[in-house]
Amino acid sequence: MELIAIRSKEGLNIETKLNELKEKLSEVYDLEGVIALLDWDQSTYMPTGGGAARGRQIAVLEKLVHEKMTDPTLGKLLDELSPLESELPYDSDEAGLIRVARRKFEKASKVPAAFIAEFANHTAETFHVWTEARPADDFSKVAPYLEKTLEYSRQMAEFFPGYEHIADPLIDFSDPGLRTSELKTLFTDLREELVPLVKAVTDREPADDTCLTRSYPQEKQWSFGLDVIKQLGYDFERGRQDKTHHPFMTKFSLGDVRITTRLKERDLGEGLFSTIHEAGHAMYEQGITEGYEGTPLAEGASSGVHESQSRLWENIVGRSRAFWEYFYPRLQRTFPDQLKDVSLDTFHRAVNKVQPSLIRTEADELTYNLHVMIRFDLELALLEGKLAVEDLPEAWRERYRQDLGVVPPDDRDGVLQDVHWYIGTIGGAFQGYTLGNILSAQFYEAALAAHPEIPDQIRRGEFNGLRGWLTEHLYRHGAKYTADELTRRATGSPLSIDPYIRYLKHKFTQLYLEE
Amino acid sequence: MELIAIRSKEGLNIETKLNELKEKLSEVYDLEGVIALLDWDQSTYMPTGGGAARGRQIAVLEKLVHEKMTDPTLGKLLDELSPLESELPYDSDEAGLIRVARRKFEKASKVPAAFIAEFANHTAETFHVWTEARPADDFSKVAPYLEKTLEYSRQMAEFFPGYEHIADPLIDFSDPGLRTSELKTLFTDLREELVPLVKAVTDREPADDTCLTRSYPQEKQWSFGLDVIKQLGYDFERGRQDKTHHPFMTKFSLGDVRITTRLKERDLGEGLFSTIHEAGHAMYEQGITEGYEGTPLAEGASSGVHESQSRLWENIVGRSRAFWEYFYPRLQRTFPDQLKDVSLDTFHRAVNKVQPSLIRTEADELTYNLHVMIRFDLELALLEGKLAVEDLPEAWRERYRQDLGVVPPDDRDGVLQDVHWYIGTIGGAFQGYTLGNILSAQFYEAALAAHPEIPDQIRRGEFNGLRGWLTEHLYRHGAKYTADELTRRATGSPLSIDPYIRYLKHKFTQLYLEE
Repeated sequence: MELIAIRSKEGLNIETKLNELKEKLSEVYDLEGVIALLDWDQSTYMPTGGGAARGRQIAVLEKLVHEKMTDPTLGKLLDELSPLESELPYDSDEAGLIRVARRKFEKASKVPAAFIAEFANHTAETFHVWTEARPADDFSKVAPYLEKTLEYSRQMAEFFPGYEHIADPLIDFSDPGLRTSELKTLFTDLREELVPLVKAVTDREPADDTCLTRSYPQEKQWSFGLDVIKQLGYDFERGRQDKTHHPFMTKFSLGDVRITTRLKERDLGEGLFSTIHEAGHAMYEQGITEGYEGTPLAEGASSGVHESQSRLWENIVGRSRAFWEYFYPRLQRTFPDQLKDVSLDTFHRAVNKVQPSLIRTEADELTYNLHVMIRFDLELALLEGKLAVEDLPEAWRERYRQDLGVVPPDDRDGVLQDVHWYIGTIGGAFQGYTLGNILSAQFYEAALAAHPEIPDQIRRGEFNGLRGWLTEHLYRHGAKYTADELTRRATGSPLSIDPYIRYLKHKFTQLYLEE
Repeated sequence: MELIAIRSKEGLNIETKLNELKEKLSEVYDLEGVIALLDWDQSTYMPTGGGAARGRQIAVLEKLVHEKMTDPTLGKLLDELSPLESELPYDSDEAGLIRVARRKFEKASKVPAAFIAEFANHTAETFHVWTEARPADDFSKVAPYLEKTLEYSRQMAEFFPGYEHIADPLIDFSDPGLRTSELKTLFTDLREELVPLVKAVTDREPADDTCLTRSYPQEKQWSFGLDVIKQLGYDFERGRQDKTHHPFMTKFSLGDVRITTRLKERDLGEGLFSTIHEAGHAMYEQGITEGYEGTPLAEGASSGVHESQSRLWENIVGRSRAFWEYFYPRLQRTFPDQLKDVSLDTFHRAVNKVQPSLIRTEADELTYNLHVMIRFDLELALLEGKLAVEDLPEAWRERYRQDLGVVPPDDRDGVLQDVHWYIGTIGGAFQGYTLGNILSAQFYEAALAAHPEIPDQIRRGEFNGLRGWLTEHLYRHGAKYTADELTRRATGSPLSIDPYIRYLKHKFTQLYLEE
C-alpha cells in the first residue's frame, strides 16, 4: 500500500495504529489463504483417508479466523482510526482499508462463534448426505437436513435486524448492498426481454454442435486450454491449473491464484470454456494492486462483479467470432482429424448453440439466466415460508416446465443438481450469476466505448487492450469500492440490464435470426 | 484411544479433564498437520509467486502452535492429570498420552516464543542464501549466516541447563534421551568395524552398475515404483506420491501420509530406492494405532527409529537378493530392451555397488555411515568452539580425504551439500541417519528370530509377515515408548551395533569377498 504522509496531530501514533491494524488483518488474511489451500488440496490431491482430519483442520482454522476477526481490540483500533478515515480522501487506499475492514469486522461480530461452528458442522453433514442423495436420486434423504438449513438461514438473517426482506442479509454476504426488492425488479425486467428472445431463437433450427462431441484426447485439450489462457493474460508464475470434479478458482495470496478444470474426451466445450471461465476469475484477483496483499482490500468487490469477469472472458470474448478467427486455425492444427471438415462458421455457431436444457452449468448464454431466476425465486419462497421443503422438488419441476419448457425426469438433474443449498445458506447463493452476466456486458460496452479497437485486437490474438482497461477500472481496486461504486466509476452508470440486452440481441440476431 | 474405566475418587472429573487435554492436543496436532501441508505444497505444486505469502502463513501457524503448546492452562491440566498417570499402568495409552504430552509441553515451554520466531526468520533467510550459495559454490556467502546459526544453536542449548555436552539438548529434539557421550562411543565402535570392511570390499573390483544408467523412461519407472510400494504395504487410500526436488515423507493426519520421489531417466536406482525409502517412513506412520490420531502419540518415536524403517525397507529388504528374485523378472518385463541381457546376479550386485563417494544421499550402504560421522564430529567441534565456521570447508575436505579417500573438488559437493545446517540448528541434525542404520538391522534380526520364514516370503513377494511384525512391535506404538524402550521391548536388548555389523559382514562378504 502506498505510504501517505499522515498530518494529523498524533501523526506518529496514528501510523503505529495503522500498522497494528494491518498486522492483525494480515494474520486473518493468511489464515484465510491457508483454509483455501486446505480446500484446494481436498478437491485435487487428497487421498480419501485424509477427509476426517481435513474437516477438523478447516474447522480449527475457521474458528481462529472468526476469533481474530471479531477480536474487540480490532474493533477498538478501528474506532481509533476513525478520525484518520474521515480526514483522508474517500479514494485513498488507507481510507478504503479502514472502511472495508470495519465493514468486515462489524459483519463478523454480529454472528456468534457458536452459531458459526454449529452451522459449519451442519453443512458438512448436509454436504456429505447430498453426495449420497444425488447419485441415488433420493431427495427425501437430504430433505430433513435442508429443513434445518432453512432454519439456520433464517437465524442467520436475524443476526442482522432491520432488513427489508429476510433474504437481504444473506444476499449481503456475497453481493453487499443489494436488496431483494431491487433484484426482483431487475430480474423481472430481464426476464421480459429474455423470454421473447429465447423463443425467437429456439423457433429456429438449433445449431449443429456435433463437431464438439468428436473424440478429443484430453492431453491436447489440456495444453490448448493452457495456451489460450496464457495468451489472455493469466499469469502462471502466480498460478496453476489442476483437474477437479467441479472447476473453481481459489486464492492463497495475490501471488498464488489457482484454477481447476475438468475435461471430457467427447465434449470439447466443457473443458475449454470452464478453463477460460476460471481464468477470468483468476485474472481479476491477479490484477489487484500488489500493495493490497494481506488486507481485506485484496479480493473481489462482490460475487456479481467476480462473475462478470468469468463470464466476460468465457462468453463475450471466448464465444465471439473475433476470438475464434484467431484461435480456430490453431485449434484445427491441434485437432486436424476432428476439425478439418468443420468451417469457422459452423464451429462458431456450435459453441453458441441455444437449447433449453436441465443443467444450469451446461446452459447456453441465452437460457442460463432463466435457470438462475428459478433458483432465486425458490430461495425467496422458502425463506418467506410460502414453499415447504417437501414441496421443493415439484416446485422445481413446475418452474422448469413453465420457464424452459423442459421437465427434469428425476431430482438428480432437478433440485439436487447444484451444491449451493447443501453447503451454505438458502438465500444469497445464486443472484451473483445473473448479476455477473448483466455486468459483463455493461463493463465490456464501457471498454469498447473507450477502446473501439478491442475487437480488432482480439481478432489478432491481442488481449492486453481489454485486460488493461479491466485492470485499470476494476481489477486493481480489489474490494476498495463496492460493486455499485465500481460500476458507476467504470461505466458512468449504475447497474443496468440495457447493455446486456443489446449484446444478446445483437449477437443472437446475427447468429440465428438473419439467415 | 481405547476407553478405560477410571476408578479414581473423582472419576468423572478426571475423565472430563482427560477429554479437555485431548481436545487441546488435537488442535495443536491439526495445526501441525496444516503446516506440513503448507510445506508439501511449497515443494510440489506452488507457483513461485506464492513464496512470500507461504512464508508468512507458516510463521503464523508456527506461532499459534507454540502458543497453544505452551499455554499455562495446558500445563495445569497435565498437573491435575498427574495422579491418574501414576495410577494407570505405564503401558496404558492414557498414561502414555499424559507422559508424552507433558514432555512435549515442558520442552516447548523452555524455549521463548520470541526466540523461536527470531530463529525461524534467521533460518528462512539462511536457507534462501544457501540456495544461491550452493550453485555458485560460494561458502563465504553463507558463512556469516552459519556463524549466527551456531550462536543460535548454543543459545537453544542454554534453554536446557544441566546438560553433559552442549549438543545433548539439540540431539534430544530428534532423538530424545540420547547423549553425545553415548553416541561418540557407539560411532567409534562402529567405525572400527566399518573401516576394515570398507577397505576389504573396495580393494576388490567395484561392481559393474552400468545396467542402471541406461535410458529408463520416467513414466515406467514411476509406475513400477508405485507397484513395488503397494505390494510392500503402503496404503494409497491414506497416502499418495508426488515428485519433488528432494524426496521426503510428510504426514497431515494418520489418514493422509504422503511421500515424494524424484526420477532420473539415466539412473534407475535413484527413483526406485528413494520411493522405497520414503514408503518405509510412511508405513511406520500409517501403522500407528488409529486411536492415537489427534494426540502426540501419533508420530514416530525418534528420528533414529524413523530412519530405521526407511533404511530397513530400502536396504535390508529392497537391496536383498530375495527381494529381487521376486521383482527382477517384473522389472525386466517393464524394461525388456534395457535389461534383457542383464542377469539377476549382475543386477543385484549393481544395486549394491560399494564405492567411496562425495555425496551422502548417493552413498552405498557400507560407506554411508562414514559420511554421517564426519558431519556429526564437525557439528560437535563447531559447538565446542574447537572449529571456526571459516575453517569448516577445509576441515570437511580433510575428513573426506582421511575417512573416504576422496576430496570434494568444490564446496558445492562439500560443506554446502546438505541442507540441514542451513535450515536448523548445528547439532542434532545427522546422528539419526546412522542410528537408523544400526536399528534397522537390530529390528530385522529380531523379526527374523521370530519369523525365520520372512526371507522366503519376500522371495514370493509377500511382505505382510515382516510388516506385521514391525507393526506389532514398533509401528502401532507411535510415540508411546521412547526409542530405548521400544528397542528393548522389540529386540530384548538395548541399542547395539552387533546385528548391523553381522548384517553388513554377511551381505558384503557374500557379494564381494567370496568370489
